[in-house]
Amino acid sequence: MKKATQQQTKEHNRNLALKTIMEHASISRAEIARKTSLTRTTVSDIVAELIAEGLVNEIGVGESLGGKSPILLSLVEDSRCLLSLDLAHNQFTGATVNLRGKIRERLSRPVKVRQVDETLALVYQILDQLLASACQPVVGIGVGTPGLVNTREGVVVNAVNLDWQNLPLRDLLQERYHLPVYVLNDSQAAAMGEYAYGAGHDPDSNLVVINARHGIGAGIVIHGRLFHGDGGYAGEIGHIVVVPEGGLLCRCGNHGCLETVASVQALIRRTQVLDNLPAVHTDTLEAIERAFAGGDALIQQVVLEAGRYLGLAIASLVGTLNIQKIVLTGEMTCFGQPWLKAVQETMRQSSLTRLAQATQLELGKLGGNGVILGASALLANDYSLLFSHRS
Amino acid sequence: MKKATQQQTKEHNRNLALKTIMEHASISRAEIARKTSLTRTTVSDIVAELIAEGLVNEIGVGESLGGKSPILLSLVEDSRCLLSLDLAHNQFTGATVNLRGKIRERLSRPVKVRQVDETLALVYQILDQLLASACQPVVGIGVGTPGLVNTREGVVVNAVNLDWQNLPLRDLLQERYHLPVYVLNDSQAAAMGEYAYGAGHDPDSNLVVINARHGIGAGIVIHGRLFHGDGGYAGEIGHIVVVPEGGLLCRCGNHGCLETVASVQALIRRTQVLDNLPAVHTDTLEAIERAFAGGDALIQQVVLEAGRYLGLAIASLVGTLNIQKIVLTGEMTCFGQPWLKAVQETMRQSSLTRLAQATQLELGKLGGNGVILGASALLANDYSLLFSHRS
Repeated sequence: MKKATQQQTKEHNRNLALKTIMEHASISRAEIARKTSLTRTTVSDIVAELIAEGLVNEIGVGESLGGKSPILLSLVEDSRCLLSLDLAHNQFTGATVNLRGKIRERLSRPVKVRQVDETLALVYQILDQLLASACQPVVGIGVGTPGLVNTREGVVVNAVNLDWQNLPLRDLLQERYHLPVYVLNDSQAAAMGEYAYGAGHDPDSNLVVINARHGIGAGIVIHGRLFHGDGGYAGEIGHIVVVPEGGLLCRCGNHGCLETVASVQALIRRTQVLDNLPAVHTDTLEAIERAFAGGDALIQQVVLEAGRYLGLAIASLVGTLNIQKIVLTGEMTCFGQPWLKAVQETMRQSSLTRLAQATQLELGKLGGNGVILGASALLANDYSLLFSHRS
Repeated sequence: MKKATQQQTKEHNRNLALKTIMEHASISRAEIARKTSLTRTTVSDIVAELIAEGLVNEIGVGESLGGKSPILLSLVEDSRCLLSLDLAHNQFTGATVNLRGKIRERLSRPVKVRQVDETLALVYQILDQLLASACQPVVGIGVGTPGLVNTREGVVVNAVNLDWQNLPLRDLLQERYHLPVYVLNDSQAAAMGEYAYGAGHDPDSNLVVINARHGIGAGIVIHGRLFHGDGGYAGEIGHIVVVPEGGLLCRCGNHGCLETVASVQALIRRTQVLDNLPAVHTDTLEAIERAFAGGDALIQQVVLEAGRYLGLAIASLVGTLNIQKIVLTGEMTCFGQPWLKAVQETMRQSSLTRLAQATQLELGKLGGNGVILGASALLANDYSLLFSHRS
């Protein structure tokens, strides 16, 4: 608890008004005043500033409720650009996103090398290209990356797949582009994406997103904000032990981690050593997906078993957090409803009935764009970045 | 985000000053002003009100820092009474607690019956007796109870051991005693107790308390406040499945729950069916504790195994929340360092090294009083309850 200074109050009120405008397709000054409890004069002053900044414009006249017809205001959603990166295992994707989370440009590059210099060069190449065609002021760069990330310092502590160790990604990008940079774990980014732009949610609500890709992670949103934990690694569920006896060796050094049985890498590994090899080659997710869709019984069995292990881990989350909305994202969701059903059933069977019944467990709404949109949502929600005179 | 009204601001400032006084053994008005950024005049007005309420008094003169020697203020810790209950499986404990968490009176009654009327009568009997001897104004009643609790409505949804189902305990107590009542899960209460009065903690920090008793639950403190989850059941880790294959039947209907292998009830059950019965009777925790302390190899093996299962469940919490301070409370802690070591080792072996190394896992500091002190801490922190003219 701290007493607010005048400058803080001013910014708080400005952000409050901007947030209210963002939450509506259109809104009058009087309605902003009513919703925020700010005075009409304060709202008028703030709106004048927002219009001068080009963030808001007047788009017409609303219906009269007795007196003069009110002028309607709306966010100029393309008045700022957000650059966003999703650094997945096999491919890097970059996008230019507007203030309402609409993707204006998007490009992907396959990752074929694992040397730091070369993967970094790929990051630069994508950002250079996006920047060259971004016509509006660019507000900042948001990056979702796999692995352990120190978000506060913008350091990728350990991303095994990219061979990144203690890489100061934020500082590298800030030096090169002279823009504010946010670096966060891809599962945390996916959670922000689903929270901000996915299925409808109440403000200040809770959400868990399970991002099942090459690795597995979770993003936990508590009261509308990402929960990072004390060390910044909250959501590292990929290394929760779900096979306590005789589990497979995990790349982390332990045995029986969730990633060894429920991730894309686990699936590929499993299908390579089946006693009766399936009729098709299954060395990529796409191949497994085709075999699954084609009805290969062995492949279906392996995929559904992966789903059941994920359900077991999610049951443990349900008991721990009692967050009633859980969303599944990442490449594993390509197995659709049958896989989802396996996850759901095991979650239900392994949870207290009362808790399981109140829990909604569903697929994400953003397809492959969750990480991109989450990284950009963090920028769009840091209102101070949107103003030309930053405090 | 909402604009604060004048009344809210006034209360906020008053609570801020009171909190600052509570956090210090003694403090001057000038120091309060400095720490809170409130003006000297505002602080003087607030302190006058606090003195009139009997909550604060002037206890002497501090060292001069140049000018006039400052008058020192201090909380009158016995100016209010908090009543607190810990409704454990085998015994109900009640206490009168002061504003600094000092227990002024404490009484326990064994629970020998399981009928609702009779267990409730026992609750009333304890509270009647405490009230009869409480000399200061009683602020409210805090109750920590096992089972699923709807804290918002003060309803014990399901406490199997007490045979309580949808019991509106808050309303029952409020009607009888005409006092504000808080009802919460005993593990959540234990967490508040350790947070408020246990090992030192930073304000707004995170803490997980694992309360291993007849059942097992956790209390999760996030940014200084209990996290309840959407349904109020956060921390229900006792029914996380830790034996996925061939686990014992749990009272919840599932198999292999943490409670079936790591709780006091699990221990008693296990020792009853050992192939080679230990040399002593082991039908109570006390008997098992004696056999353990006496070096019975079989009993030691069973106890340490229980600890290892708890460590496995805690590893999953470490990965999920990355909260770096975890405290163990409840009757299982009677097995002391050997048991703690088993919990710690398994937690470390089943977590990412980086996460485990940063996690402090230790025994609680409040002995058997954690639940009592946590329930009273909630009352003491609801400053509005402390004033004669409640808003």
